[in-house]
Amino acid sequence: MISTTMSLTTSKSMGPITWDDATWILTSSFIIFTMQSGFGLLESGCVSRKNEVNIMFKNAVDVVFGGLTYWAFGFGLSFGNKAGSNPFCGIGYFFVDTAAEEMGILFSTYVFQLSFATTATTIVSGAMAERTKLLSYIVFSFLNTICYCIPAHWEWASNGFLRSLGVVDIAGSGAVHVVGGVSALVAAFILKPRKGRFYDGLKAGENPLPMGNPANTLIGMFMLWWGWLAFNCGSTFGISGGKWKLAAKAAITTLNSSMGGGMVGIFASYILLKRKFDVAFLVNSILGALVGITAGCAVVRPWEAVVIGIIGGTLAVGSAHLLSRIKVDDPVGAVAVHGVCGIWGMLSVGLFAATDTIENTTQGRSGVFHGGGFYLLGVQLLAAVVITVWSGVVSAILLLGIKFTIGLRMTEAEERLGADYVEHGVGEEDDLPFYERGLFSPPRHRPLSSHTIHSMKSNASINTIADSINDNVNLVKRQRPKAKRFDRVVPIEVMPGEVHETDISRNVENGSNRINGCTPIGMTGTT
Amino acid sequence: MISTTMSLTTSKSMGPITWDDATWILTSSFIIFTMQSGFGLLESGCVSRKNEVNIMFKNAVDVVFGGLTYWAFGFGLSFGNKAGSNPFCGIGYFFVDTAAEEMGILFSTYVFQLSFATTATTIVSGAMAERTKLLSYIVFSFLNTICYCIPAHWEWASNGFLRSLGVVDIAGSGAVHVVGGVSALVAAFILKPRKGRFYDGLKAGENPLPMGNPANTLIGMFMLWWGWLAFNCGSTFGISGGKWKLAAKAAITTLNSSMGGGMVGIFASYILLKRKFDVAFLVNSILGALVGITAGCAVVRPWEAVVIGIIGGTLAVGSAHLLSRIKVDDPVGAVAVHGVCGIWGMLSVGLFAATDTIENTTQGRSGVFHGGGFYLLGVQLLAAVVITVWSGVVSAILLLGIKFTIGLRMTEAEERLGADYVEHGVGEEDDLPFYERGLFSPPRHRPLSSHTIHSMKSNASINTIADSINDNVNLVKRQRPKAKRFDRVVPIEVMPGEVHETDISRNVENGSNRINGCTPIGMTGTT
Amino acid sequence: MISTTMSLTTSKSMGPITWDDATWILTSSFIIFTMQSGFGLLESGCVSRKNEVNIMFKNAVDVVFGGLTYWAFGFGLSFGNKAGSNPFCGIGYFFVDTAAEEMGILFSTYVFQLSFATTATTIVSGAMAERTKLLSYIVFSFLNTICYCIPAHWEWASNGFLRSLGVVDIAGSGAVHVVGGVSALVAAFILKPRKGRFYDGLKAGENPLPMGNPANTLIGMFMLWWGWLAFNCGSTFGISGGKWKLAAKAAITTLNSSMGGGMVGIFASYILLKRKFDVAFLVNSILGALVGITAGCAVVRPWEAVVIGIIGGTLAVGSAHLLSRIKVDDPVGAVAVHGVCGIWGMLSVGLFAATDTIENTTQGRSGVFHGGGFYLLGVQLLAAVVITVWSGVVSAILLLGIKFTIGLRMTEAEERLGADYVEHGVGEEDDLPFYERGLFSPPRHRPLSSHTIHSMKSNASINTIADSINDNVNLVKRQRPKAKRFDRVVPIEVMPGEVHETDISRNVENGSNRINGCTPIGMTGTT
Repeated sequence: MISTTMSLTTSKSMGPITWDDATWILTSSFIIFTMQSGFGLLESGCVSRKNEVNIMFKNAVDVVFGGLTYWAFGFGLSFGNKAGSNPFCGIGYFFVDTAAEEMGILFSTYVFQLSFATTATTIVSGAMAERTKLLSYIVFSFLNTICYCIPAHWEWASNGFLRSLGVVDIAGSGAVHVVGGVSALVAAFILKPRKGRFYDGLKAGENPLPMGNPANTLIGMFMLWWGWLAFNCGSTFGISGGKWKLAAKAAITTLNSSMGGGMVGIFASYILLKRKFDVAFLVNSILGALVGITAGCAVVRPWEAVVIGIIGGTLAVGSAHLLSRIKVDDPVGAVAVHGVCGIWGMLSVGLFAATDTIENTTQGRSGVFHGGGFYLLGVQLLAAVVITVWSGVVSAILLLGIKFTIGLRMTEAEERLGADYVEHGVGEEDDLPFYERGLFSPPRHRPLSSHTIHSMKSNASINTIADSINDNVNLVKRQRPKAKRFDRVVPIEVMPGEVHETDISRNVENGSNRINGCTPIGMTGTT
Repeated sequence: MISTTMSLTTSKSMGPITWDDATWILTSSFIIFTMQSGFGLLESGCVSRKNEVNIMFKNAVDVVFGGLTYWAFGFGLSFGNKAGSNPFCGIGYFFVDTAAEEMGILFSTYVFQLSFATTATTIVSGAMAERTKLLSYIVFSFLNTICYCIPAHWEWASNGFLRSLGVVDIAGSGAVHVVGGVSALVAAFILKPRKGRFYDGLKAGENPLPMGNPANTLIGMFMLWWGWLAFNCGSTFGISGGKWKLAAKAAITTLNSSMGGGMVGIFASYILLKRKFDVAFLVNSILGALVGITAGCAVVRPWEAVVIGIIGGTLAVGSAHLLSRIKVDDPVGAVAVHGVCGIWGMLSVGLFAATDTIENTTQGRSGVFHGGGFYLLGVQLLAAVVITVWSGVVSAILLLGIKFTIGLRMTEAEERLGADYVEHGVGEEDDLPFYERGLFSPPRHRPLSSHTIHSMKSNASINTIADSINDNVNLVKRQRPKAKRFDRVVPIEVMPGEVHETDISRNVENGSNRINGCTPIGMTGTT
Repeated sequence: MISTTMSLTTSKSMGPITWDDATWILTSSFIIFTMQSGFGLLESGCVSRKNEVNIMFKNAVDVVFGGLTYWAFGFGLSFGNKAGSNPFCGIGYFFVDTAAEEMGILFSTYVFQLSFATTATTIVSGAMAERTKLLSYIVFSFLNTICYCIPAHWEWASNGFLRSLGVVDIAGSGAVHVVGGVSALVAAFILKPRKGRFYDGLKAGENPLPMGNPANTLIGMFMLWWGWLAFNCGSTFGISGGKWKLAAKAAITTLNSSMGGGMVGIFASYILLKRKFDVAFLVNSILGALVGITAGCAVVRPWEAVVIGIIGGTLAVGSAHLLSRIKVDDPVGAVAVHGVCGIWGMLSVGLFAATDTIENTTQGRSGVFHGGGFYLLGVQLLAAVVITVWSGVVSAILLLGIKFTIGLRMTEAEERLGADYVEHGVGEEDDLPFYERGLFSPPRHRPLSSHTIHSMKSNASINTIADSINDNVNLVKRQRPKAKRFDRVVPIEVMPGEVHETDISRNVENGSNRINGCTPIGMTGTT
């Protein structure tokens, strides 16, 4: 095999690889990229239908702009080993390129790391869904590479300070998921909740902004699940020597953890939600378990993986609920799944890791339950803390910078119209009179009538209209606590948003039973 | 290559493998798991929209609970080679785990076999769609591993009795698809048809419960198609030695068979359905052909694969029709595709197999058409029969056990509401008054009005309401064989389920032309 | 490694490969086939909802019938090296089959090439969407193999005349994308635009037949994106020797090009469409950039790939606009993305290629910018021209042959009803009275009422009805340039197509404010 081995090694994380390793690394990368499709479906399924195109567009933006900056400086700051490289950041490989002899190693490494980097930025987009201006998001995704690439250096570059301390984070519970989850939390906090998500009358668990397409959410989860196998197993960064054994172990532990997590999610939903099997519970628990096993996938045993998954799933479901209670609006559960469970993943290595005798990924150490004492746990905790602080501070600076320059949040009227319409013109053709639409194609579902949209668009003071809508609604709410008659007079399938705002108040004021132009059942005789 | 070869072999089915083999096995597994996404889309596309979330949820349940039991005892009963292992079942490897030296082989084998096992259980979920209680399904998926793992031992373990007789079932026409298809038949039979699926007035071919989302069905079929390549080619269980040649052969025969099947399905639909290209015909014929080639993929020639596919496609389409005629309600065609074509796959090996001179998978024998006489055909037939009997009996015991304890079938009212709403709370927020939903998000499509659902939910005797609905409908049907006036008075897009039940009868009784609160065209003058 | 090397080589394009190469080739093929799922979603997302099933069905037809003919004669005409093979076409390997010793090479090569061939035919289906009879399309896909397989011989067979001249087209910008794109242009031209796509009143950029499901379009784009990595990297046709280095290079250049293209698309949309982020701009620019890098993926540098992507994206977006201006109706942008950018891909090699010192894919030459002079650019231009002419002529002959025998285009009434209903019976059950549909499943969205459809289907002179509809509409348009009252009197969610045609004219004639049976808001008092 000697002839296929690159003798030149540029850093330990890009050590000598064979063409067999290249096959493994590249194939894994290709499968990891399919996780972008999974994220796209998952996130678009979680938001309301009027924003599903927008969130997928953002995922493409992540790859395009996040990828350009990762190529320009992200990879270099993570893995550059030229003069000036230090424990805090790498130097070199900016605008990644190289001569023929090194290109096999460098380019396959780069592609693999890029698939990780784009994943990290995509995590954040979910938490910002349904209320962030796309232009601002583009600027953010362009800059956010800085947030990701530094912790990757700490943990994975040969001279990174956390690696020197002995941190074990095989596939990135810390460097990918904690980074993404903490940024998501900061973003959700800075952005504030979507309009209508939280208000006083809600009972516990009620969500007036539910998943727009739970079936897509589940398909997205499936795609992430299988992509995760390549994510964790590919992180052995090769298949030669003993690496294939670690890859095989990573596969079984990843699957076992997801099963443990899924079991928790299903039972928790059944018990806590009174015999309902909630989709969000399932998705969060499985993904939380996967995040939890990501750091230690190749150094824990299969049964330990089930335990790690059970705890990960519990943490994901529990913290998603907690965040909702403190009114942090994270439409896709990114903070709970990636942030909280990412920290759990880091700590779980400190508890469950056994010494890796094959490739020495644990640097000779082991976790608390395997007699390694508390050193490794301490390092893992330290890593979790410094990554949390870094990600929180950097993303806060970036997001606040954007907020106070070009602005971060859509106007209320735009939010109400939905980003698909506002940012992408989806449904705009429905504003044409119907006989100008080709062969009378039916209009899309949209929560607002053409009339209202035209008013909103033409009117200079959009917020005035939005305010007046809300005033009317509040009026209705005050006057009619149970609104029973309203319920009765909407017997046909009417889009509530179609109701002309002025008519709501008029109806309320004169007590008319008519709404929306349709004479209700039992009322025709009285007309 | 000697240094990369594991000398320790634990059973013939886990023989010595190299890291190259591990790459092949693991990569194949990752792609096979994507078939779960395919099944999810296919099945959710086949059912009505009110159950699409539920069926995907069940696919996740299959992996979670089926996976846990496969890890706990399924793999051990299939491939355990410790003391006590016998021709009927294996013993050992329970709660799969091992020390470092064996872990490469064992874990990669386990992950590959797990991807097969979860596929087998997922087959059944389709036939049980739209009427099975989810809790009961969870119990079933937990126990159903027993049904799958024993035939796998017979065929694939070194001491399995069918293997000793010389059975050839390379990728599981018998051990995966017959098992799944027969269980699906038993389940459909025990569950009885969905309400409204069959009734007296239907003409041949009419299906009042059509696919809710045929586009998703097709995308699901595509995903299964490409996943099948990894399924069949990965079943060479390696790439080293001559295995890569068999893998390449399996790829071309798998594709050729699917083309033969698809051709039949398209032509059959065009001829039998009078110039319609039916989606179910296409999907069933392609998948039936794929099931048919699964047993013999590496030991038949490309043109023989086309023939096997043509026969497989014909059997799938024909038996799906036949099952419908005898009123077995299998919403996704699982029995026809997996059961009938699985048996065909087993027999086709007995007819078309040529002696495998590369890896000796045929144990020196060949099929009828290659001068091998009737021995192999006899063994294949025997295998099909014993697997059918085993799967039928075991799944009947499991399902009847569940039926007579916690119950298997949803109530009629629940079935009418749809499992998405009943089991998962999808659409529940639409019961909120519209102004309490965030920014007036539009309600989902649901066949029943909020009003009716509230009545159903609040009322203790749900079945009474459901019965009275049906009574009214029957009344309508008796009185108005053609119901022409009804057709006329629903000129606008009205959700029929929205009609208030009492209003139906009232309208019928007094001959009113009003329905649903809308004065119909041409009637306004008479108001 | 000698023992794993096939010494028998049948043509240079099927040179000696190891099992490692087979792993790479087969795995790449499996991933490339997933691009069919991507095309299915992309194309079905681009058309209106009433045709989304039809377009996916066509993609299956492409694999089934295109695959059968590729097996029967396509591969042989491309890569056959038996007696009679010449610079224009290959001879041999018809009905691909072989004995055991050669089968590893031949079958893995075949499967890889098949995945390319089915991609090429699928490109055309998009441009023919929404107006082509399915039976005619089946005939076309059966014959279209001839159009693809000959240029593949020219470029990729050892004795192909373009290869002899030194053409470099690593993954098929010419042999796949120019072929597909030019055929798409011819098809769009022969078929003429969809009804309602272009008419006098439209302003620039207005499209009355927008994407029916932009979210699916985006998911389809994602799937194509990741599949493209296997497409380009797999085209090294192996991983052994230095091929793995070229594969790694192809991965980074493919990704970099897509980023450059996506950046252009996003900015262009923002600027040209006044702050809108158009989905078609994004999709076309990213895919155009990917097509552009396909020819030279392994022989250009990463930063050059960004430039190639920027130009590719610009060309895709610009030419899509141009085609719309000259009223060529290509619903999915196939001509712009595959045709125009395919030519750009060919030319870009002539500009940017550096001499490949690893596997000598450039035959010692290099492009203009690397000091190679204009020879290579000339060859690339020649290849683009002859492939364009070939594809244009052959597909015109095929399509005109079909047009003047069995006909190519649906009738206007069928087009209006949509192919899903007309060809596949999707929604047919909605014609049943609602109480005969199982448990009152809600009807699908359809632009026409059951009543209209029944009239259309029962009436012998379908076109008469369609004409009269259009007459009425034209009447409306003439009489009511702004039709303000119309806008006002449709306050509830009404499917415009549901409007009874006679009622439109009646309302127009007598000036009635009633439409559709619903008394409009503010009019109830006057009843």
